Amino acid sequence: MSEIYIGVDFGATKLNAVAITPTGEVRAKLREPTEATKGLEVVIKNIVSLIEKVISSGTKRRDEIRGIGIGAPGPLNPETGIIIKAPNLPGWRNVTLRDLIREKINLPVFLENDANAAAFGEYWLGAGKNAKVLLCLTLGTGVGGGVIINGKIFSGANFIGAELGHTIIKYDGLRCSCGNFGCLEAYVSATAIVQRTSTAIESGEKTLLTKMVNNRLEDLTAKLVHEAAKKGDRLAKDIMTETGKLLGIGITTLANIFNPDVVIIGGGVSRAGKFLLEPARQEVCKRAMPGIADSLYIVRAKLGEDSGAIGAAGIALFKDRKRL
Amino acid sequence: MSEIYIGVDFGATKLNAVAITPTGEVRAKLREPTEATKGLEVVIKNIVSLIEKVISSGTKRRDEIRGIGIGAPGPLNPETGIIIKAPNLPGWRNVTLRDLIREKINLPVFLENDANAAAFGEYWLGAGKNAKVLLCLTLGTGVGGGVIINGKIFSGANFIGAELGHTIIKYDGLRCSCGNFGCLEAYVSATAIVQRTSTAIESGEKTLLTKMVNNRLEDLTAKLVHEAAKKGDRLAKDIMTETGKLLGIGITTLANIFNPDVVIIGGGVSRAGKFLLEPARQEVCKRAMPGIADSLYIVRAKLGEDSGAIGAAGIALFKDRKRL
Repeated sequence: MSEIYIGVDFGATKLNAVAITPTGEVRAKLREPTEATKGLEVVIKNIVSLIEKVISSGTKRRDEIRGIGIGAPGPLNPETGIIIKAPNLPGWRNVTLRDLIREKINLPVFLENDANAAAFGEYWLGAGKNAKVLLCLTLGTGVGGGVIINGKIFSGANFIGAELGHTIIKYDGLRCSCGNFGCLEAYVSATAIVQRTSTAIESGEKTLLTKMVNNRLEDLTAKLVHEAAKKGDRLAKDIMTETGKLLGIGITTLANIFNPDVVIIGGGVSRAGKFLLEPARQEVCKRAMPGIADSLYIVRAKLGEDSGAIGAAGIALFKDRKRL
Repeated sequence: MSEIYIGVDFGATKLNAVAITPTGEVRAKLREPTEATKGLEVVIKNIVSLIEKVISSGTKRRDEIRGIGIGAPGPLNPETGIIIKAPNLPGWRNVTLRDLIREKINLPVFLENDANAAAFGEYWLGAGKNAKVLLCLTLGTGVGGGVIINGKIFSGANFIGAELGHTIIKYDGLRCSCGNFGCLEAYVSATAIVQRTSTAIESGEKTLLTKMVNNRLEDLTAKLVHEAAKKGDRLAKDIMTETGKLLGIGITTLANIFNPDVVIIGGGVSRAGKFLLEPARQEVCKRAMPGIADSLYIVRAKLGEDSGAIGAAGIALFKDRKRL
């Protein structure tokens, strides 16, 4: 009989689930909308239904399932299984998500912050295997962070740390969504890239992007900026280089503090690959303390959009085996 | 028979040693010059001689001594006991300090970075007892950092992390001694305080300090700035408030990342107490992510100049008991 673990990545718009073996063989993978606007009950029903579906398609017998991991928006408490508050999910305050799911499914359930789950996925099966100190930055609408030290998730004294996106890089700089000024997130998120590009276009810079969005700047995305850069567009390339440098500044602080062996860059923006990572690496080499850059790999996430779900399943596995 | 541990704080100018019991009773305390300019052999002779003296004055019988901890300038490797390079000590490169001392004294010897030893001292017997996540910032000529997570020293994959003083707060800001721009150290070290005060005085600001140093700006120290602030001097108070705010900005980044329960401020500059810590706390409350500031104490170091030596002895104790 196989042993199977289920992982769910619970995002504000999408639910992503996998059924996976302890050796990392994905037996099933499903994705469905979260329907967050329909309220808490519907979301929980959707999560339960997706778990049941991924169990059906990924296993022959239900008793193969050893546990379920859920990566969810935080702040949350993995020990009590309670989501304290989910800013992007209306009505989610002090929700005992772990117990609610466990009641419905009757299997061991583990809850973890989504960014930590993604970091754990990359540690278990992705770009950070065997790392002693792994940092993961997820560049999307915001910038998420995860820290794995000696195989354990590190999130601080009350599980609300590892907010790597809220590393200040310029204290009198841009306003961040968190209310602070100068956070890394305000410079390297998809939102920030779009903002910086729009400003440049509005100030009259020539670029392929104007045509690519038919003059509708509101249709601009970070993905389009990357596409234009690939086509050789000067502005798009400059924006990506600048973003990479700013990312490198944030990584420098993190590297001086954590002396990590690997920093993994995930999320949609990371698809920009070398346009982003090359200038980031150069900046770290220029700025970091002696020795820090020599042993540091800055790499793209390997598991793509599945890192969260795979990591959540990995957490269930490692908890089950008392290795976490 | 008592059990006694010896701790040595090996600084560029002074050697500080304690003999201490497992319950934290200091049996002897001695201080001598390092004589770093006289070269490696003399320094090692001085360390050995100081250890012998503190053993003689702190114990009745030599077999009471269970182990010796040494906090030394880094980068160093605590596992091999080798000082890789000590920037302020001429000739110190790849020195097998642990083994050299062990050969002479014939007792277990443990080597640790000095800033980590100071943090461990505050964790063991100082301002951070029982903390889950403790950060220590030592504000002196430079800014040292130490991180204790669940009772263990955290210094990264290759023991060269925890450089909390090299948290960037303004990427296009002041040049730091490390070569980078905008590090916390360039804003809140004693050196930075003196620099900022001198610049203000040179630009014509009225202050008691001018008289306190008899117009010799080269005699200005951070300690004098603190004294002038205590006397109500406006410029000195402003400088300290600004330094506190800048310190708070650095702590905000660290707090968002580590979600610590305590941040301990040590080193000579920390004597400024509330002049420094009050504005720092306010800045963290304004800037940190939700929940982070609520459970965070920002406090002065309790062990003063002995934190390094006491921490080094504590490391020897905890290693001996397999708790580290």
